[in-house]
Amino acid sequence: MLAADSSAQNRFGFEVLHQDAGSCARLGRMHTAHGEISTPVFLPVGTAGAVKAMPAEWLEDLNARIILANTYHLYLRPGHERIARLGGLHRFMSWGGGILTDSGGYQVYSHRELRRIEEDGVHFQSHLDGSSHFLTPEKAIDIQRALGSDIVMAFDECTPYPCGRVDAEASMELSMRWEKRCLEHWLRNADGSRAMFGIVQGGMFADLRKRSVEALLEMNFPGMAIGGLSVGEPKDLMFEVLDTTVPLLPWDRPRYLMGVGMPEDIVRAVGRGVDIFDCVLPTRNARNGCLFTSQGRVLIKNAAYAEDERPLDPECGCPTCKRYSRAYLRHLYVTGEHLSATLNTLHNLTFYLDMMEKIRHAIALDSFDKWFRLTEKGVN
Amino acid sequence: MLAADSSAQNRFGFEVLHQDAGSCARLGRMHTAHGEISTPVFLPVGTAGAVKAMPAEWLEDLNARIILANTYHLYLRPGHERIARLGGLHRFMSWGGGILTDSGGYQVYSHRELRRIEEDGVHFQSHLDGSSHFLTPEKAIDIQRALGSDIVMAFDECTPYPCGRVDAEASMELSMRWEKRCLEHWLRNADGSRAMFGIVQGGMFADLRKRSVEALLEMNFPGMAIGGLSVGEPKDLMFEVLDTTVPLLPWDRPRYLMGVGMPEDIVRAVGRGVDIFDCVLPTRNARNGCLFTSQGRVLIKNAAYAEDERPLDPECGCPTCKRYSRAYLRHLYVTGEHLSATLNTLHNLTFYLDMMEKIRHAIALDSFDKWFRLTEKGVN
Repeated sequence: MLAADSSAQNRFGFEVLHQDAGSCARLGRMHTAHGEISTPVFLPVGTAGAVKAMPAEWLEDLNARIILANTYHLYLRPGHERIARLGGLHRFMSWGGGILTDSGGYQVYSHRELRRIEEDGVHFQSHLDGSSHFLTPEKAIDIQRALGSDIVMAFDECTPYPCGRVDAEASMELSMRWEKRCLEHWLRNADGSRAMFGIVQGGMFADLRKRSVEALLEMNFPGMAIGGLSVGEPKDLMFEVLDTTVPLLPWDRPRYLMGVGMPEDIVRAVGRGVDIFDCVLPTRNARNGCLFTSQGRVLIKNAAYAEDERPLDPECGCPTCKRYSRAYLRHLYVTGEHLSATLNTLHNLTFYLDMMEKIRHAIALDSFDKWFRLTEKGVN
Repeated sequence: MLAADSSAQNRFGFEVLHQDAGSCARLGRMHTAHGEISTPVFLPVGTAGAVKAMPAEWLEDLNARIILANTYHLYLRPGHERIARLGGLHRFMSWGGGILTDSGGYQVYSHRELRRIEEDGVHFQSHLDGSSHFLTPEKAIDIQRALGSDIVMAFDECTPYPCGRVDAEASMELSMRWEKRCLEHWLRNADGSRAMFGIVQGGMFADLRKRSVEALLEMNFPGMAIGGLSVGEPKDLMFEVLDTTVPLLPWDRPRYLMGVGMPEDIVRAVGRGVDIFDCVLPTRNARNGCLFTSQGRVLIKNAAYAEDERPLDPECGCPTCKRYSRAYLRHLYVTGEHLSATLNTLHNLTFYLDMMEKIRHAIALDSFDKWFRLTEKGVN
């Protein structure tokens, strides 16, 4: 009985709780084996099994419910088999919340000079030691299964930008074949507690995106991601693709816009019906001293802050803003103190997660559009 | 009335509460304007206004009561006048506990190729930008006063090792003249809420050390430091100097062994009657992956820990040991994750502060020697 109950509780699921009256924004809830996750949600990026500079305690304090980890990095170091022997990624990094892993495809894509693609998979060289590896759809799934991810991403090819129609079509079709292999491999050994999401490709071509969605619908993924965006294309083009693609996605499945992004982009995508986001921006920018605040972006190294006793963001309740002055944060950054990245990351992630909270609240009040207009300047 | 009370409360003071029955170890209490401090005490080093990689919240959780900050570094960046305008160092770094500042003499000593000593003070070049500066005893005091330190150190010349008798004598005598100038300058504007400590020099020569102590006793400092040790001399020689010097120090004043050191050295020096210690070792070693545990030192990068699920130190209650495995700590170190230094520093400082707690407990039980013998192997 207990086993059956807990298995039922642990089934991956998603429900749309409310649709905003004036936009396509939706309030939803994902059920995972590692907790309930309210959507729209932003996933802090924990590349190598740690959200850079953030103690897990602080992620919990921030009420972060799910993070993203990178298959490529963990495969190379410390290795997925080692992580499996150590009880899986949740246990390894002592993280009780959800974990979504990408498939490694994007990292292979980023290290373009180090890889060669063929039908069966991708040959690539480690960016760490030059060692040779061969990643197939099946292997990408095996790795993510070994990690124990709550949400596993299909292995696709990220179409670069710019890319002509012929290449984009071939790339999308390869992704669809690979994703089918991923799903088949996954379903051979799936108990429903974890989910695999499909990824829409097709470059900047509306009809290719449509064909990609149709192929994925046929495979019946429990969640749908939009890949191949935020790869250097103009912002308007990205939103054009979203405008034509999102409405094609099934209403009852979570929609994930991979690798996006800027706060204003997240807000605009939420208004188009996207539920899930991830991006290195808040964490990476924090380490570079670029801080998001309710009053716009602050480059903390700026001399203007040298004797500024105000908190970084007077409207923020994070420990960094409650305790330290801009002058001190500037000093830490300028002197290269280790603490700088820690305090800055804590703030930037607070900014993002607070923003998602406000987004969810506005949707619940059928006021997403109103909130968007009111805060357009503030959300920078 | 209130003002008078608060002024009385804020007077710097020290009392020996108990002397161990079987050794020269003493249990004491220092009264500062920023709290009571039980001795023997270890001061984490916060070079540039931050204990490297340690959020102030965590220092508080560790019950760290006093830290050391470096005059030289803060003078160069962000500048003592800026810190004064921002309300002093306590406020600048948001630290409510005690702060002891060194005088800058040791840093000038470490950058030997960049300095030139004359009777009035030291010409030196900034290690940051090569700019020229002239540090005098009076200026070293002015800087520390601007920082608002609870314990201000006299400006001395750190005698190098090895050093012949003639040079050591001249260096010690210069230090005594400088320290006298420091004290006179300090007393022109002191309200008793902060203290200036004198520093014994004299190289490795017992008679020079004795003469230095006598000179300082005449000046009547409220605390006495032993400088010029842990500068490369053999350990036995350091303890020889302590053996002859510590008994000469006034019993009713705190005794501070500067820059020491290894856990076993601290324990041995406590047994000789030293009350105060500081060292970069726990924090610097943490960043280099060298961790202190009850079972000896752990070099966390060692492959032996790659799949070691045990806590770093099963006897330690710090968040690092309670939450993470050696395997994970090794992974963070090997991948260069920012979090590595944070978690390692938290542990190493916990180890040091726990050790001081045990030392105080053993003295209170008149069992310091017994504890020392029992734990001799464990303490490192």
